[in-house]
Amino acid sequence: MFENILENVHQESPLIHCITNYVTVNDVANAILACGASPIMADSIEEVEDITSICSATYINIGTLNERTVDSMIKAGKKANHMNHPVVLDPVGAGASRFRTDTLFKLLNEIDFTVIRGNISEIKTIYTRSGKTKGVDADVKDRIREDTLDDAILLAKGISSRLGSVIAITGPIDIVADENRAYVIYNGHPMMSRITGTGCMLTGLIAAFVAANRENITEAVAAAVTIMGLSGELGYRRMKENNEGTSSLRSYLIDEISKMDAGILKGGMKVEIR
Amino acid sequence: MFENILENVHQESPLIHCITNYVTVNDVANAILACGASPIMADSIEEVEDITSICSATYINIGTLNERTVDSMIKAGKKANHMNHPVVLDPVGAGASRFRTDTLFKLLNEIDFTVIRGNISEIKTIYTRSGKTKGVDADVKDRIREDTLDDAILLAKGISSRLGSVIAITGPIDIVADENRAYVIYNGHPMMSRITGTGCMLTGLIAAFVAANRENITEAVAAAVTIMGLSGELGYRRMKENNEGTSSLRSYLIDEISKMDAGILKGGMKVEIR
Amino acid sequence: MFENILENVHQESPLIHCITNYVTVNDVANAILACGASPIMADSIEEVEDITSICSATYINIGTLNERTVDSMIKAGKKANHMNHPVVLDPVGAGASRFRTDTLFKLLNEIDFTVIRGNISEIKTIYTRSGKTKGVDADVKDRIREDTLDDAILLAKGISSRLGSVIAITGPIDIVADENRAYVIYNGHPMMSRITGTGCMLTGLIAAFVAANRENITEAVAAAVTIMGLSGELGYRRMKENNEGTSSLRSYLIDEISKMDAGILKGGMKVEIR
Repeated sequence: MFENILENVHQESPLIHCITNYVTVNDVANAILACGASPIMADSIEEVEDITSICSATYINIGTLNERTVDSMIKAGKKANHMNHPVVLDPVGAGASRFRTDTLFKLLNEIDFTVIRGNISEIKTIYTRSGKTKGVDADVKDRIREDTLDDAILLAKGISSRLGSVIAITGPIDIVADENRAYVIYNGHPMMSRITGTGCMLTGLIAAFVAANRENITEAVAAAVTIMGLSGELGYRRMKENNEGTSSLRSYLIDEISKMDAGILKGGMKVEIR
Repeated sequence: MFENILENVHQESPLIHCITNYVTVNDVANAILACGASPIMADSIEEVEDITSICSATYINIGTLNERTVDSMIKAGKKANHMNHPVVLDPVGAGASRFRTDTLFKLLNEIDFTVIRGNISEIKTIYTRSGKTKGVDADVKDRIREDTLDDAILLAKGISSRLGSVIAITGPIDIVADENRAYVIYNGHPMMSRITGTGCMLTGLIAAFVAANRENITEAVAAAVTIMGLSGELGYRRMKENNEGTSSLRSYLIDEISKMDAGILKGGMKVEIR
Repeated sequence: MFENILENVHQESPLIHCITNYVTVNDVANAILACGASPIMADSIEEVEDITSICSATYINIGTLNERTVDSMIKAGKKANHMNHPVVLDPVGAGASRFRTDTLFKLLNEIDFTVIRGNISEIKTIYTRSGKTKGVDADVKDRIREDTLDDAILLAKGISSRLGSVIAITGPIDIVADENRAYVIYNGHPMMSRITGTGCMLTGLIAAFVAANRENITEAVAAAVTIMGLSGELGYRRMKENNEGTSSLRSYLIDEISKMDAGILKGGMKVEIR
């Protein structure tokens, strides 16, 4: 099934409006291009409505917030809601500062998000309205392992039910859930946490995948998460073969996204439905 | 002849003042360094005149415009005009929003540009004062092919005559024209459109090349466009040999710019004059 | 001794608050991750105090200054001083514009820096209160060579004594000095000046190294400078073996940081104490 999801992205090549942070913006653009879609980055309040209008989905990422861009995010998100375009949120570092947490809730109040993707600490911040993160990384105590998996699935389903958004929690094990069902994804490699931007890139892929698969949102998100994890595994393998390091892993990861096809995906995905 | 143009860049190593977007700024800096020149990125209104004064050329790119940087662009461009330094414009996404199109015409009114480089949709926006782009990419219907080449050359020469700028239109076939003559350049590879920043990097190279070749502006632009296309071809070949993907292509493209010399250039350039 | 310094970074994995430029920010984040630490980029005045509070060190870089971020730098730096966290400054391009030079002295007045790292022209600007740089690169006449080394050491010790900061001057030969002693470091490769961000990345490493080695600040800075230079040498060797160019060097440099261990460091470091 994920193969069709990917095929639709390749066929439709959706244009994605991104308001994102300046740390990983280049990687996000290249990841979106690698999966077969097309990005446009625009965050001026003067143009966000125009840009959202010509796009198929809107991607909002709070990684390097400032006063100026929060207003642009809200304007773009409202316009996308009005046009019935998918809107995807990456609440980077929510819980790390009051400004980030407050902005998260402002965005949640003003915009209906189709999907929200974060690490477990960021997603818990949505639940508890306060959070503990280690900067932009999940708190070690929060990380999903087999013994906490069921609780994390319940959390994801609960937030999904409350907000009406598909919830993706990524980490050593990934969860993608709507209120009824959850995909549990075992792809990925721990070394991915040694490069910046894997989360931001993934949320960009999610925006592209839901834009091209409007009838299958939850599955489209699960496909994007699986492809990111599998690309990381394959990239890691190549890095090791060449005796290289983390920067090469970053590059190979995007390479593998660009090379992903039905055969590779089918051969490598490790997904359960619960 | 292009070999001398390149040699002058290597010899003079001009310093280029860049006001550019935050998506591809790192690639632009590395591409300018790779060709033998030196970049400085500075967009604060407090310092753009000082920075322009110590540089040999000014590069303006509207890829991620905001209210703050437009004023800086105008201030820097006017200063460069006053000092008789070349000023190069990349009108990224002109036509995609009213703000971008309006800004483009504001810049054209206030600054004399030595060179303007864009895709066909962006350049048509200059001609028609309204445009259709697919985000930051050219509209598919607009793309230059053999049967539309003559029209595109006429367009480029016409705009050059009207504005007094050398016009570069890049795509599957590239055109560099002043009012009298046009270079048609067949280098490049379609895969280059799968990475972000090739246009922005190229415009950065153009700024470096005209800075070091003030007596031969049109030819300097044509040399930069040729070198970018040829570096893309060579980078693509290496990517394929190694069975890699788009991120490796990005890296090899810059590698090839850094390795370019008279022999490689002479052996690989595919250029006609019309 | 440097091996213990590195081991402490790996063990503690300190979180570093970075307010830096948008040109090299991605490389800085990846370099900090590569050395075993963790970065968080945040420059909004609304959150810099919160973010500094949860971090172990603060990194301030003036590469792409604007009116908005200068205030954030001061607020973050004061908070870090108040909490007794190390604060590290990279005065990129100081001397290239009055705004940069003025901002440098504003920062020096308001914040006690634990370490300042720059090229010789930037550091001389601190000394003379006016400077000559070639954009963001050192003026060729200033560059440290064997015959000017003693003068440069005196300069570094003098500034260290005046400001109470450890001073790192990097170039063909690197110097790390406090008021009493200087490390002279011969690692590195000239090709490193052909990629952007080596200085910014190094200052990021320095912040991580001092955060994890509070009792040995000068030595921690010297270890970071040595590891950066050695990683550049090793990256250059790999680039040459593969017949690649500057973008591959950039990637291999970060790879080598991520692979650095006691054995590699011991085998490759070229350091004298004077």
